[in-house]
Amino acid sequence: MAAGKVLWRNARLATLDGTEPWGWVERGALVSEDERLLWVGDEADLPAMEFAAEHDLAGAVVTPGLIDCHTHLVYGGQRAREFELRLAGASYEEIARAGGGIRSTVAATRAAGEDELLALAQARLDDLLAEGVTTIEVKSGYGLSFEAEAKSLRVARRLQGAELRTSYLGAHALPPEFQGRQDAYVDAVCEWMASLHEQGLVDAVDAFCEGIGFTPAQTRRVFEAARRLGLPVKLHAEQLSDQAGTKLACEFGALSCDHLEWLSPSGIAAMQRSGTVAVLLPGAYYFLRETKLPPIQQLREAGVPMAIATDHNPGTSPTLSLLLMLNMACTLFRLTPEEALRGVTVHAARALGLQADRGRLAAGLRADFCVWDVAHPNELAYFFGRNPLVSRVRGGKLS
Amino acid sequence: MAAGKVLWRNARLATLDGTEPWGWVERGALVSEDERLLWVGDEADLPAMEFAAEHDLAGAVVTPGLIDCHTHLVYGGQRAREFELRLAGASYEEIARAGGGIRSTVAATRAAGEDELLALAQARLDDLLAEGVTTIEVKSGYGLSFEAEAKSLRVARRLQGAELRTSYLGAHALPPEFQGRQDAYVDAVCEWMASLHEQGLVDAVDAFCEGIGFTPAQTRRVFEAARRLGLPVKLHAEQLSDQAGTKLACEFGALSCDHLEWLSPSGIAAMQRSGTVAVLLPGAYYFLRETKLPPIQQLREAGVPMAIATDHNPGTSPTLSLLLMLNMACTLFRLTPEEALRGVTVHAARALGLQADRGRLAAGLRADFCVWDVAHPNELAYFFGRNPLVSRVRGGKLS
Ligand SMILES: [Zn+2]
Ligand SMILES: [Zn+2]
Repeated sequence: MAAGKVLWRNARLATLDGTEPWGWVERGALVSEDERLLWVGDEADLPAMEFAAEHDLAGAVVTPGLIDCHTHLVYGGQRAREFELRLAGASYEEIARAGGGIRSTVAATRAAGEDELLALAQARLDDLLAEGVTTIEVKSGYGLSFEAEAKSLRVARRLQGAELRTSYLGAHALPPEFQGRQDAYVDAVCEWMASLHEQGLVDAVDAFCEGIGFTPAQTRRVFEAARRLGLPVKLHAEQLSDQAGTKLACEFGALSCDHLEWLSPSGIAAMQRSGTVAVLLPGAYYFLRETKLPPIQQLREAGVPMAIATDHNPGTSPTLSLLLMLNMACTLFRLTPEEALRGVTVHAARALGLQADRGRLAAGLRADFCVWDVAHPNELAYFFGRNPLVSRVRGGKLS
Repeated sequence: MAAGKVLWRNARLATLDGTEPWGWVERGALVSEDERLLWVGDEADLPAMEFAAEHDLAGAVVTPGLIDCHTHLVYGGQRAREFELRLAGASYEEIARAGGGIRSTVAATRAAGEDELLALAQARLDDLLAEGVTTIEVKSGYGLSFEAEAKSLRVARRLQGAELRTSYLGAHALPPEFQGRQDAYVDAVCEWMASLHEQGLVDAVDAFCEGIGFTPAQTRRVFEAARRLGLPVKLHAEQLSDQAGTKLACEFGALSCDHLEWLSPSGIAAMQRSGTVAVLLPGAYYFLRETKLPPIQQLREAGVPMAIATDHNPGTSPTLSLLLMLNMACTLFRLTPEEALRGVTVHAARALGLQADRGRLAAGLRADFCVWDVAHPNELAYFFGRNPLVSRVRGGKLS
């Protein structure tokens, strides 16, 4: 498309800009120029301009493009057989013997060629794009060696169809060759980080702070390495127990703490002070049949922004629908539909440090938006297992 | 397509025929002739025949077409606003004042023109078809007057793209004009039944036996009217409490009893004796945040066939994904992936009295099948919020 101003008129806008419900504009219009929004508002107030093209959206609901701010999209294989064995009553040992568990994913990720890994991840991404995702975060963490982590991050960088942010999650699990030497593995993770960063592969550093993951002391070392490199941090925190990982992450000004089922009041206070986003992952909560809910009401009262993501991964959240996560956030976590939509737009952008650039419909931001076949945006959260996307505009272009 | 034999070769078949796991045929082929399967088996055993056409399925997994055996697809409006109000903490009274609840759906259904109602229901059906549904049951029950029930059933008969079975659910709720006269309404339901049946609109009769629905004595009167007309019955039973509706339905040889969270051992024994199918509805269980699980292990041990359905309806299960119900049946109800797939094929067919005609891949049955982009059919239940359908064949035709 030639450069020039493009008018998108006759739209009902959920801008999510400001604090008005939904940032609603009943008779709205957008003007994009190249990749940016030049103007957003009531069509009656549209300034006189020349347009290179004009689209009549026929009264459709328009929202910002969706942002999936927590995924593990790059891995080899899948774990459907393990799912089946578990449901047939197999024990942990039987599943391990049958090649299940995270180790099977690490082995498959290491064994896969880079192009093969890319094809697998791209197919998963395509499902998310079909529902209106325009920006996505992708973590490494199934390679667990320098080469396999680098390969995973390169694959993430090569994905097409959305704006990509990568997080280096070397501290995801202990690889077999470091068995019994967890601290030595943390040293390696920190060492690899500098090199991966040098190659331009890392936007943020993440870790899994948990009884079955890494200790707070080990997590601190990872974060200190990140700080030395000037990289922002995020944390898988308080998912299965309260490790006070959130407080630690907030010391480092973390962009987000994710999961948070076991988050304590002092953890909430720390998030409030540091402006850290709470990323809620209802897909994993559902798939693991957890019963301990994240402290939603307390987060809400503290004004901690809540984002929602798929946490797509083969072991605990094999979902490829961010819209389904809106429904699960409402049904399981009792968010309101508007909170859920803000969770995959404005607050998801903040969880990636991109709040000035996207996540709302406002002049100056990226022209990433979705056109929906719904009467009201609350339908995006109400239905489950339905995709009402009509079209997706990314960087001002229909895609 | 001209009449003639069509070969579908190079398929990995989950026939679900017989008791072998998945009814698996690793190097399978199907031969269809017009609407029927003429031959199903190992490609190496294919008899010599002339084919009018031949399709190479490239090793893809093929299952029977999916059957959604319990839906309320025909209604006016939707209830997203009610969902939103509830999550914002509105009371029952506030929701009723805002026009929520089943009464709002009844009013919208009555007010809608027949073509308008058809367009709404067809759009919903199209979402289900896109995931491989080839047969669907549709209930009335949001009209609750003779005219509006007749209109709803006519709309169900006019839906395109799947084989339709209609159930008359006049005894779904008490309409406002019968307030305080529940028995008189049951008289009306029975009277209308004869006339609707005469018009060829009714394949089965259903009722909602519940504290907030109709009593067992009222349900019995509905079933007696059905028996006089030679119509099979089904029942919404033991969803919110144990009303012993299942036992009653089994006295009448019910095709299915549906929901069943509160089903008792004597109810299971009655189902076992009458060969009645247990239709499990995990979408409603999920959306209502129920905690009482249907007695899956006892049903399994009693050999009661378990079907799975969407229960699509605006109040308690606004889902349009039967594949998502497979995952929910496994995740929430602990069915195995194979049980879940049998639940939307062979056992769903039985719940509609169609077990001799469809639901398996076997010679003589309808040529309704799905081609999937999965390595194994267990993936259909493992992923949630993913649609790997490649193509859908209905009555021998790609659609
Ligand atoms: Zn994660
Ligand atoms: Zn129902």
